[in-house]
Amino acid sequence: MKESTEKAKIASGIVVSSRVRLARNCVDYPFPPRLSIDGAIKVVDSFKSAVIDSKNALVKKLSFIDFSKMPPLERASLVEKHLVSKDFALKREFTGLILSKDETISLMINEEDHLRIQSILEGLQISKCWQCCNLVDNIIEENIQYAYSDELGYLTSCPTNVGTGMRVSIMVHLPALTMLGYLQNVIDTVNKIGITVRGLYGEGSDFIGNLYQISNQVSLGQPEEEIITKMEVIAQRIIEQEELAREKLKESATQLEDRLFRSLGIFSNARILSSNECMKLLSDVRLGVELSIIKSINMEIINELIVVTQPANLQMHYKSILTPSERDIKRAELIREKLGGIKNV
Amino acid sequence: MKESTEKAKIASGIVVSSRVRLARNCVDYPFPPRLSIDGAIKVVDSFKSAVIDSKNALVKKLSFIDFSKMPPLERASLVEKHLVSKDFALKREFTGLILSKDETISLMINEEDHLRIQSILEGLQISKCWQCCNLVDNIIEENIQYAYSDELGYLTSCPTNVGTGMRVSIMVHLPALTMLGYLQNVIDTVNKIGITVRGLYGEGSDFIGNLYQISNQVSLGQPEEEIITKMEVIAQRIIEQEELAREKLKESATQLEDRLFRSLGIFSNARILSSNECMKLLSDVRLGVELSIIKSINMEIINELIVVTQPANLQMHYKSILTPSERDIKRAELIREKLGGIKNV
Repeated sequence: MKESTEKAKIASGIVVSSRVRLARNCVDYPFPPRLSIDGAIKVVDSFKSAVIDSKNALVKKLSFIDFSKMPPLERASLVEKHLVSKDFALKREFTGLILSKDETISLMINEEDHLRIQSILEGLQISKCWQCCNLVDNIIEENIQYAYSDELGYLTSCPTNVGTGMRVSIMVHLPALTMLGYLQNVIDTVNKIGITVRGLYGEGSDFIGNLYQISNQVSLGQPEEEIITKMEVIAQRIIEQEELAREKLKESATQLEDRLFRSLGIFSNARILSSNECMKLLSDVRLGVELSIIKSINMEIINELIVVTQPANLQMHYKSILTPSERDIKRAELIREKLGGIKNV
Repeated sequence: MKESTEKAKIASGIVVSSRVRLARNCVDYPFPPRLSIDGAIKVVDSFKSAVIDSKNALVKKLSFIDFSKMPPLERASLVEKHLVSKDFALKREFTGLILSKDETISLMINEEDHLRIQSILEGLQISKCWQCCNLVDNIIEENIQYAYSDELGYLTSCPTNVGTGMRVSIMVHLPALTMLGYLQNVIDTVNKIGITVRGLYGEGSDFIGNLYQISNQVSLGQPEEEIITKMEVIAQRIIEQEELAREKLKESATQLEDRLFRSLGIFSNARILSSNECMKLLSDVRLGVELSIIKSINMEIINELIVVTQPANLQMHYKSILTPSERDIKRAELIREKLGGIKNV
């Protein structure tokens, strides 16, 4: 793919973000499910040293965080940002987190595997995420010997990750395919080629806000580059299908505008807004912005609002513990603040 | 009632408008249901001369309109403004209309009776309406002998109007009583003392936009002043009850604000708006303005929008015949225009 096309697709907004993560384990210790406390502490220290003591320029961007000492709200906010997994946030002790300042790289130590390396970037940037992960992976491999089998590849706690240990995910916003009822068809098609479609927060989470996480299911038997290419092709196909669906919606231009502007009206005026309704309205507003129907809001604010209106991030923003009803009021308040009293037109 | 109190109540907005109308007939001609064409023409001419040839200063404000030649859309727009009755607008020939420039006085010639004198003013101004009607009535009586019985009073086509021939109506906006489910109680109470409650456009019309027309049912056996006083007292009672209900709503301030601002958001952003939804939203916005919750809109715009968003007036505004779907689009457009891109706060 040419860089200009890549940029266009990043900007298109249909792919909200791309993520690549690698699962790795140290050859010297049992895998986390059977790891002793002593072993866990040593694993955290080993990876901390391997990364932080490296002289690679990338490392300057990274900091080590004693995850077990992080307050629960802050942990939850990282889950909402997709920087750590829900399971990892619930683990209380003997875990470590290495995070880049710009929050594009995160390393979970002692999650399901000894190490999970993740890179997350906005838009469709799978290759770039992979390059990032690869770079970090190489830095670590200078000091640590991974559990690796010539026959199987990287060894992991869960057999589904054995091989490349790689999972590639894109978060896509598919309002038009959803509205027109074409989405199940898309899901069925990609399922057949070993691709999973899940909600915003992984397995079991609802498809709120017309946001879908699309990721590879199997990491065995395919080289990394092949997985990357496959996911890029799938992303392109989904973008095309969503764009076609949007063209179809535009055939009833006034009805579409009516829907999107009503959502904007509620979004920017409500005084009580649940997380679910917020995501639903955000989806419409996002579509309006992407189709240049809504011109008073830019995409950065939309992307910021997707994160900051989530329960934990909202509480982090207001620096206080809030009940669900208090959150619904503060969420509406924050939206009005962020939209800065936009003009209805 | 003191003038200052009167002004306060005019401004309160709960009473949207007051109307008084008198039914009168000429002693020289059969009543309209039995009136010949020739007779009808003479009746129109008699009343036209009696009013227009008078030297009273009030008359300068009045113009005679050959109602039978008025285009149907324009007639319908006068119905929406409550200046003529629906039945009158449907009558094709041998009718006349006398209208004041400010559209507060209207005289229908050859409606159900030879003459209907009406005065309509905004807010609670029943006495003033009555004074207006009385003045016009006296001017006409200088030249025309009314059908009058010492025993019964003014004689009319329909027995319900015999006596004073007077109907006093107030249009009230009762969103809080409606929301709280207290309205049926109000209706039952006033019904017992000979008062009718109807929708925006009279008998059989729905209670859209939480607007109710409250009027006296019987005009026989009570002097005019007594009817006026009775209606003023009832208006005061209804205002008090609605104000109490609003206080009750304010106890859940955030919920109320949420509802009113959501309505404002839709009202000012929708691209397609039916007449019914428009009235429903206008009711919420009006309540918001009256309670000083919505500060970006003034009451004059609200009052203007109640009229100009009605089907006929909307078409008059755009000077074209529009289908219902075209009207729904133009209605939304006009609202955005009138609100002038208000700021969401």
